[in-house]
Amino acid sequence: MFRTAELGSSLSKEEFHEIEPVLRSDLLAVQHELRLSGKFPVIIVFAGVDGAGKSETVNLLNEWMDPRWLVTRAYGQASDEMAERPEYWRYWRDLPARGRVGLFLSSWYSRPLLDRVYGRTSEAEYDEALDRIIAFEKCLADDGALIMKFWMHLGRDAQKTRLKALQKDPLTRWRVTQTDWDHWHLYDTFVTAAERIIMRTSTHKSLWQIVEGVDKRYRSVTVGTAILDAIRTHINQAEVHKKLRTELAAAQQACALMPMATNSAGDQGGELTAMGTTAAPPRTSKVRRLTVLDRLDMSVACDKRSYRKKREEYQGKLNLSCRTAKKLGLSTILVFEGWDAAGKGGAVRRITEALDARDYQVIPIAAPTDEERAKHYLWRFWRHLSRAGRLTIFDRSWYGRVLVERVEGFAAEDEWKRAYAEINDFEDQLVHHGIVLCKFWIHITNEEQLARFKARESTAYKQWKLTDEDWRNREQWGLYEEAVNDMVERTSTQQAPWTLVEGNDKLFTRIKVLSTVCEALNAGIERAQKAGAAALQANLEKSA
Amino acid sequence: MFRTAELGSSLSKEEFHEIEPVLRSDLLAVQHELRLSGKFPVIIVFAGVDGAGKSETVNLLNEWMDPRWLVTRAYGQASDEMAERPEYWRYWRDLPARGRVGLFLSSWYSRPLLDRVYGRTSEAEYDEALDRIIAFEKCLADDGALIMKFWMHLGRDAQKTRLKALQKDPLTRWRVTQTDWDHWHLYDTFVTAAERIIMRTSTHKSLWQIVEGVDKRYRSVTVGTAILDAIRTHINQAEVHKKLRTELAAAQQACALMPMATNSAGDQGGELTAMGTTAAPPRTSKVRRLTVLDRLDMSVACDKRSYRKKREEYQGKLNLSCRTAKKLGLSTILVFEGWDAAGKGGAVRRITEALDARDYQVIPIAAPTDEERAKHYLWRFWRHLSRAGRLTIFDRSWYGRVLVERVEGFAAEDEWKRAYAEINDFEDQLVHHGIVLCKFWIHITNEEQLARFKARESTAYKQWKLTDEDWRNREQWGLYEEAVNDMVERTSTQQAPWTLVEGNDKLFTRIKVLSTVCEALNAGIERAQKAGAAALQANLEKSA
Repeated sequence: MFRTAELGSSLSKEEFHEIEPVLRSDLLAVQHELRLSGKFPVIIVFAGVDGAGKSETVNLLNEWMDPRWLVTRAYGQASDEMAERPEYWRYWRDLPARGRVGLFLSSWYSRPLLDRVYGRTSEAEYDEALDRIIAFEKCLADDGALIMKFWMHLGRDAQKTRLKALQKDPLTRWRVTQTDWDHWHLYDTFVTAAERIIMRTSTHKSLWQIVEGVDKRYRSVTVGTAILDAIRTHINQAEVHKKLRTELAAAQQACALMPMATNSAGDQGGELTAMGTTAAPPRTSKVRRLTVLDRLDMSVACDKRSYRKKREEYQGKLNLSCRTAKKLGLSTILVFEGWDAAGKGGAVRRITEALDARDYQVIPIAAPTDEERAKHYLWRFWRHLSRAGRLTIFDRSWYGRVLVERVEGFAAEDEWKRAYAEINDFEDQLVHHGIVLCKFWIHITNEEQLARFKARESTAYKQWKLTDEDWRNREQWGLYEEAVNDMVERTSTQQAPWTLVEGNDKLFTRIKVLSTVCEALNAGIERAQKAGAAALQANLEKSA
Repeated sequence: MFRTAELGSSLSKEEFHEIEPVLRSDLLAVQHELRLSGKFPVIIVFAGVDGAGKSETVNLLNEWMDPRWLVTRAYGQASDEMAERPEYWRYWRDLPARGRVGLFLSSWYSRPLLDRVYGRTSEAEYDEALDRIIAFEKCLADDGALIMKFWMHLGRDAQKTRLKALQKDPLTRWRVTQTDWDHWHLYDTFVTAAERIIMRTSTHKSLWQIVEGVDKRYRSVTVGTAILDAIRTHINQAEVHKKLRTELAAAQQACALMPMATNSAGDQGGELTAMGTTAAPPRTSKVRRLTVLDRLDMSVACDKRSYRKKREEYQGKLNLSCRTAKKLGLSTILVFEGWDAAGKGGAVRRITEALDARDYQVIPIAAPTDEERAKHYLWRFWRHLSRAGRLTIFDRSWYGRVLVERVEGFAAEDEWKRAYAEINDFEDQLVHHGIVLCKFWIHITNEEQLARFKARESTAYKQWKLTDEDWRNREQWGLYEEAVNDMVERTSTQQAPWTLVEGNDKLFTRIKVLSTVCEALNAGIERAQKAGAAALQANLEKSA
């Protein structure tokens, strides 16, 4: 695989001096164009053989381009704030915003590769880690990010020569560490593991490019030119893509109007005017598909006395469990989704009542801020992941992507459709890190919602809770039902199942939520204790 | 001082049950009003004697109010990410946005108090720490924040009784730790130190309120009512304040127009129309005050050959120093301010060229994001403070407050006027933490700027660098000169002096900047080495 990168490719001084000024000014120009367009982030990963010029190239790019719109990140030892969260938290945190360029050294490839080279992981575990990388990069690329990956290569002998040369020069001696020599002794193992990376993780949207690293001029120009071309192409593609999408949307709208025109074919003239002024009938008015929500027994209820008893019981248990979880460093995430007025707030309060305010955080999810909008939609949830041992409650969540954003058309069809897989992967990482995850859909019937809206209207201090948007959402009930059904179907995984809560009775809702959380937390504690403090510690160290 | 809080104040069950529902619903309502107004953040600090109900009260407030718009924070052991930054970084990070409420336990008062009680600091050091608190709270209060501080008190015997009672109940036993008993044995020392806190840090805008903590019902209602009243009053005041400010601005504008009208009194009619259509002449057209910038010898220059030699020399030195600084955990912050086209970017590049891209970050400061706008204006700079051993370059900075925001009127007069002290205090904290801080004003003459603007206009790949705003700023030259003069005068402190750079010659500029950074960094390294690795370690532990 690396043979073509051991040919001794080089560039003469003259050639380089001819190319460099043009390349630099083109890179600056394209970086500027990218920044103004603000369309997508550029993520550039550098990996490869030690001494093949990874960090020199990154430094050079910082020289050639405008460092104000560049982010350079390298990952070494994890800080404790990193180690307490899922591995990818640190990478998500540093992702460049749309319009910016991020250069990544010792990136998400580093640990899996070294773990494999040093025999700390099996082949199967290695593949699993690579799968995680594929999912991560796919998630970003699907969102429009331009991902480039450079493998800087040196042959076995070339590496030795280079390390020795670096070591001779007092100005570069510091760059060569014992680790570099250790790696050199493991060269063949290293290259075998690297080949697997390049084979497995070269996907359509994020290809590896192997660059021969012997000659500085050659590799610099190669990388620089590749980046220039890729950003240029991607800007053009983004424009074409946008145009196509607009056209597609227009075509779909036209199609959607067709059957109506046919239906009213008997009428004489004026259809178009009428169609222009009246809203299209909800799609669900045709045949209503049965959804998972129809299976719920909405008559269940809980009387006041047994509510009080159970509430006290579960809140006591919850308090104890949370303290144990805190000691174990076990974090919990609760997700609350449900109809407007379903009682999410009330259920959340019955949980927080039982806890110490220092140990939990309620995150209300509304419209994203502009910083959030400039990143992948999952970024705003990654950023709220807590340190070890805390409980985080999301009042609405990442599921907005497949609920409100789908129904209201804020997300394009391909966006929300691929979100199911992205969400499953996100939650997989949470659970994988040992986080206890509970997801609640609190369901009420259409009639119950109406009754609650009316009650809110007539109670002075509850009026603010009811907005025009709530009434508008209510009109879309059918579409939401469909979206909820799809959501539950596609994201109720074994490790992160949905709990559907029959919410017409508020007391029943609260008890069901409380008991579910208690159960999940206890199961998590048992798992953690079984695995033993030692294993947990090992896990922390591993992710460090 | 605490005698009034040892009277055994209490509230009967009946009284409590009468007050509680009204108080709760009022608190929710006022919280909602606060959130919708988005006018100011509410910062509530709880401190006091162990067992006096600090955390219970915070929990109760989380129950009474809407936890979605509350942030509760308690500070224990610092994470390594905290310890590597100035102490207040952790508090700035957690400050609530305008419209939100933050509840703080074991807050910025905790460490100074305990350090004093355990005799780890002298009286003078204690007072210094309290001064820092005063400055911090003043900075927030001046920006409109409502700051409330509750001292929850228990007499010596009452504390003992309460700790014993808590220990007896298996449900609350976990709350009492050995630390609590240690504190109890130190009760008198503790109370003496606490008195000093209350005396020294009860300022006009952030008064301590002492609450007797024996009776749960009494203290809960007392705190709840105080919060309710304070938020209500503050909302009204904010409105009145806003109205007054508008009126004041109108009055000032009217006054500003007066002399003009007088000057043109000889003319017949039409003045008002003319004044309405033509821009007011720049204030500086009258008598130009000499500024520090006039003292600069703008003819200094550097020839190409000696530039190359010196650049190489300083870049080599800088590279070495930065590596040493990294090992020592010594961070560096460089601030670049200057006229448009003064050559900030070029100077920055000559520095970054010498460094490893992993170790520095260039932060361009433009308009704040909406998240930044919702916080104190210094928040956006605190958030960029790096981990230990890195170099951060601010391309424009917090000085925007007293430059562009002053000149363009984005900040009100009282806002930019108090900014000098706020900035001095901010920088004091940086330097105090051991950070090497350099501030550059790169100066060019008015004529030189014009020449550069014209050159930019005629060079294709530099055109994007020149915007209409640059031309508009140029018209305000005189006002900016005055602002720069004031800035240098008021913020050139001994520990954080300004370096004024004669910028007409780009090569000279770059060498002066490079040499200044080298010098400052070396001085910092020497200081750090003299103080010894041991002391640095102690410092880290202390801030942890």
